[in-house]
Amino acid sequence: MGSATRLTGLLQKRCLGTAFPRSSTLAVPSRAPWKGTTCTIWRPHLIYRNRIVREASSSSKSVAYTSDFYPGIKRNPNFARLTPEHVSFFKSLLGSASGLVDGVSTDATEDIEPYNVDWMRKYRGRATLVLKPESTEQVSRILTYCNNNMLAVVPQGGNTGLVGGSVPVFDEIVINLQRMNKIRSFDDVSGILVADAGVVLEVADNYLAERNHMFPLDLGAKGSCQIGGNVATNAGGLRLIRYGSLHGNVLGVEAVLPDGTILDDLSKLRKNNTGYDIKQLFIGGEGTIGIITGISVFCPQRSTAVNVAYFALDSYKKVQEAFKEAKTQLSEILSAFELMDGNSQKIVSQVRGRKLPLESEAPFYCLIETSGSNTDHDSQKLENFLENVMSSEIVSDGVLAQDQTQIGDLWSCREGIPECLGHWGGVYKYDLSIPITELYDLVTATRGRLDAAGLMSASDKSLPVVDAVGYGHMGDSNLHLNVATRRYDKKVEEALEPFVYEWVAERDGSVSAEHGLGIAKKDYIGYSRNETMVKLMKQIKDLYDPKGIMNPYKYI
Amino acid sequence: MGSATRLTGLLQKRCLGTAFPRSSTLAVPSRAPWKGTTCTIWRPHLIYRNRIVREASSSSKSVAYTSDFYPGIKRNPNFARLTPEHVSFFKSLLGSASGLVDGVSTDATEDIEPYNVDWMRKYRGRATLVLKPESTEQVSRILTYCNNNMLAVVPQGGNTGLVGGSVPVFDEIVINLQRMNKIRSFDDVSGILVADAGVVLEVADNYLAERNHMFPLDLGAKGSCQIGGNVATNAGGLRLIRYGSLHGNVLGVEAVLPDGTILDDLSKLRKNNTGYDIKQLFIGGEGTIGIITGISVFCPQRSTAVNVAYFALDSYKKVQEAFKEAKTQLSEILSAFELMDGNSQKIVSQVRGRKLPLESEAPFYCLIETSGSNTDHDSQKLENFLENVMSSEIVSDGVLAQDQTQIGDLWSCREGIPECLGHWGGVYKYDLSIPITELYDLVTATRGRLDAAGLMSASDKSLPVVDAVGYGHMGDSNLHLNVATRRYDKKVEEALEPFVYEWVAERDGSVSAEHGLGIAKKDYIGYSRNETMVKLMKQIKDLYDPKGIMNPYKYI
Repeated sequence: MGSATRLTGLLQKRCLGTAFPRSSTLAVPSRAPWKGTTCTIWRPHLIYRNRIVREASSSSKSVAYTSDFYPGIKRNPNFARLTPEHVSFFKSLLGSASGLVDGVSTDATEDIEPYNVDWMRKYRGRATLVLKPESTEQVSRILTYCNNNMLAVVPQGGNTGLVGGSVPVFDEIVINLQRMNKIRSFDDVSGILVADAGVVLEVADNYLAERNHMFPLDLGAKGSCQIGGNVATNAGGLRLIRYGSLHGNVLGVEAVLPDGTILDDLSKLRKNNTGYDIKQLFIGGEGTIGIITGISVFCPQRSTAVNVAYFALDSYKKVQEAFKEAKTQLSEILSAFELMDGNSQKIVSQVRGRKLPLESEAPFYCLIETSGSNTDHDSQKLENFLENVMSSEIVSDGVLAQDQTQIGDLWSCREGIPECLGHWGGVYKYDLSIPITELYDLVTATRGRLDAAGLMSASDKSLPVVDAVGYGHMGDSNLHLNVATRRYDKKVEEALEPFVYEWVAERDGSVSAEHGLGIAKKDYIGYSRNETMVKLMKQIKDLYDPKGIMNPYKYI
Repeated sequence: MGSATRLTGLLQKRCLGTAFPRSSTLAVPSRAPWKGTTCTIWRPHLIYRNRIVREASSSSKSVAYTSDFYPGIKRNPNFARLTPEHVSFFKSLLGSASGLVDGVSTDATEDIEPYNVDWMRKYRGRATLVLKPESTEQVSRILTYCNNNMLAVVPQGGNTGLVGGSVPVFDEIVINLQRMNKIRSFDDVSGILVADAGVVLEVADNYLAERNHMFPLDLGAKGSCQIGGNVATNAGGLRLIRYGSLHGNVLGVEAVLPDGTILDDLSKLRKNNTGYDIKQLFIGGEGTIGIITGISVFCPQRSTAVNVAYFALDSYKKVQEAFKEAKTQLSEILSAFELMDGNSQKIVSQVRGRKLPLESEAPFYCLIETSGSNTDHDSQKLENFLENVMSSEIVSDGVLAQDQTQIGDLWSCREGIPECLGHWGGVYKYDLSIPITELYDLVTATRGRLDAAGLMSASDKSLPVVDAVGYGHMGDSNLHLNVATRRYDKKVEEALEPFVYEWVAERDGSVSAEHGLGIAKKDYIGYSRNETMVKLMKQIKDLYDPKGIMNPYKYI
């Protein structure tokens, strides 16, 4: 223990004095002035770990309509146009004025705008009606009516998605779940929570925290996103490595099919082998075959001990070795293993004008979090691990957070990357799954291409690209490849695409690890799924939504 | 630590001298002489944790044909009868003589019998042809031919299922996966294994053990069952509480659809949000919509430290309290929490003629297993837990295994229950999921009914029922209700059914927690699934298998 203590002392000394306070300012990003790109580009945003402002602002009008942005997508003429008669029906169904926003028989543009624009301010629809049902029965009656009258709809939760899936493209009716926000039940023996789809993730997690449990998912958008939306998009988040995916943790789903059928599969059982597990199709179905109105989810015990370490490594090979060692030595308490390359950390330091937690420069950094039930045991395991990886020269330097503030500071080196990358203008962002042994090769290859094309320089402002960096959830083989740019240049796009997608496809990776398809990735599914799988998916869509009214123009 | 050590010393003293060696004799059970029952009844079997003997024996002929047992099920006349021409096709396709067992053009009854009879010797089909493909391509060509020629098939793995799902009912062709038994790849950084469906679970787990990993599933039948069958039946097993369900751990499936289409969804990614997760339908689909030929599965790090404790409790309320405490204090290292009522343990002691690990009699016993990466930490956590639950009088007495032999002895008190219950003749066995707070009430209610009807006595041999006991996976709310009987008596059945099913249905439980539907539970799905869900399941069946050739007469 002597040397472990020594190491801790050393680490502690290094850590003190470095401060990376989390951003608490809510900046409303403006629309990127570029169009025509096929990948995810947007202006830097600071709406991270903060509640999204819902009020309409005049600046929303500066967001281009999605239908203008994607001129190839045409409104399906089979869909009916909304009339005052339709609105009357919905008004009588939903009862109170708070149940809908009517832009059909009144001028409600300002009120409707927040429901038409996504939180990245990248997609904008032309809906004139927002419905806010209070019960599953109301959702059922709405969908029955819409299906009978060929009215297209968009289910909407917290509207925090990253692929434009939760806002209309044309005049689809927005069905917003915000008024379905009740916790239905929680059993603290089994850990099973049943709740309305519209419960905000953070509200659910706070409710569980009071009962020594936690929601098995954590996200930057937790203050706004809704648990129904999390399930509909199969959100992954920060701690999938520990708690697993929603396909394993969601025990039951209540959903309404396009024809109004209520699918009541709200099981509170961890085991139920009686037939096809149909609810799984709704997990990650992105609201294209029905609207999730309630979920039942297994919630683990909340950990009382949380530790965070941040360390430097000389190569991606050593990152993999460190990950293997962490899996072995930290095993059951490992709750996050995040990768950040040296370039990403340099940018964080440069943009914030502050030092990084470690003085030495390295090509790779990792953040490890442990969560367990015994502080002493966990600290000892983590110290042993760090001593081991440092003495075997897997890790070249490291720091261990000593308190909650330092935990936040270390996490901010990881979580602050997207924000800092946006400093120069726009960012090409790719959310990719790649077999772990080759994960970082894509960043190297991409940098090579941009360099070879003479497009990238950290200092030469005449070149469009500032830097290309890689970071992400190492534990889940989930790479975020980000290319920070000074201005739009078609050559950059040509260097990146379809190169990135083809590179990922050649390695059987995924072009959307955790963000889903929405409208942004709809056309790229072929890079991650073969023709047979796409055909089978279309069969499922046709089976459940033969008229195609559910979240049209998106997904597959 | 002083008192914890004291407790350990005390526990150690109690444990020493008690020995419950595992059964190592393989007894071939004989057919129960009763018919007409609708629930699972069979003679005691000792084929638990042993390899099943595959050779045909003359006694197999004493097993009644399923079609006689279920006279209501008629052979579908749309299915073709096998001809020598069909067999010629398969012979040329599969090449060698070891590729099939031909009972059509030759007399191969003896050779085919092991494929016609399930391991419980409860179901017996009339197949005359067994095909043993070696590749996914061969499976595809077989199914294409069968679908075109209206030949019904039964996919078969290790044939260790408990609901008759893996043997034919009439003359369906058996497609046995035993020759598809290759490990395709394993990556020890990500922990992802890709393997043929026919790999035996224990083989896969041993392969992983050499690489410090483990298969995320453990079963009594691990020496015989195949991983493809495990996935097809969504096997639960002993440690679901820790490692979660296959819906979360299976990352990819390769399957062949009835029309021969190869569904290649063998993803090696933990995250892939590109479309509906169709593979989930095959997990628990019991071979009714396709044949799984390969799987990709996330395998956790193998634990180096394993501890087991066994303790006594005065009430089911205290069992729940102990479970809550275990979740809190053992949290990340808890890998099993098994419940055994006092009656089940009395029977184990009585049948084996040996003392139980604890001298004091109690109405409930629990077995806790911990698995972690640090022996000292885990022992300390477990000792602290036991001290805590004993000092707060949640637990009345306890014992902690000191070595591997004692771990086996304590587990045998749980695992030996089914075998010992069969001592008097037959056992009515129910595998149920019930909300945890009410889980044991069913045993009490069932005992009450049997008592009130004057049917049960431990000593009076004139009464048909010896005892009704409850045990199971407390951590998963999975109760095994078993009724040990001396002889078949219609009154017993009338006392049990539909009472048990209705009781479970009233509490939104499941009539098949982990065993699946097969032919045994086909007619009871309505107790656990509503009409809408059953209708949606039938849609899925019709979508993938419109001619109905896949595993007919079963599931839904």
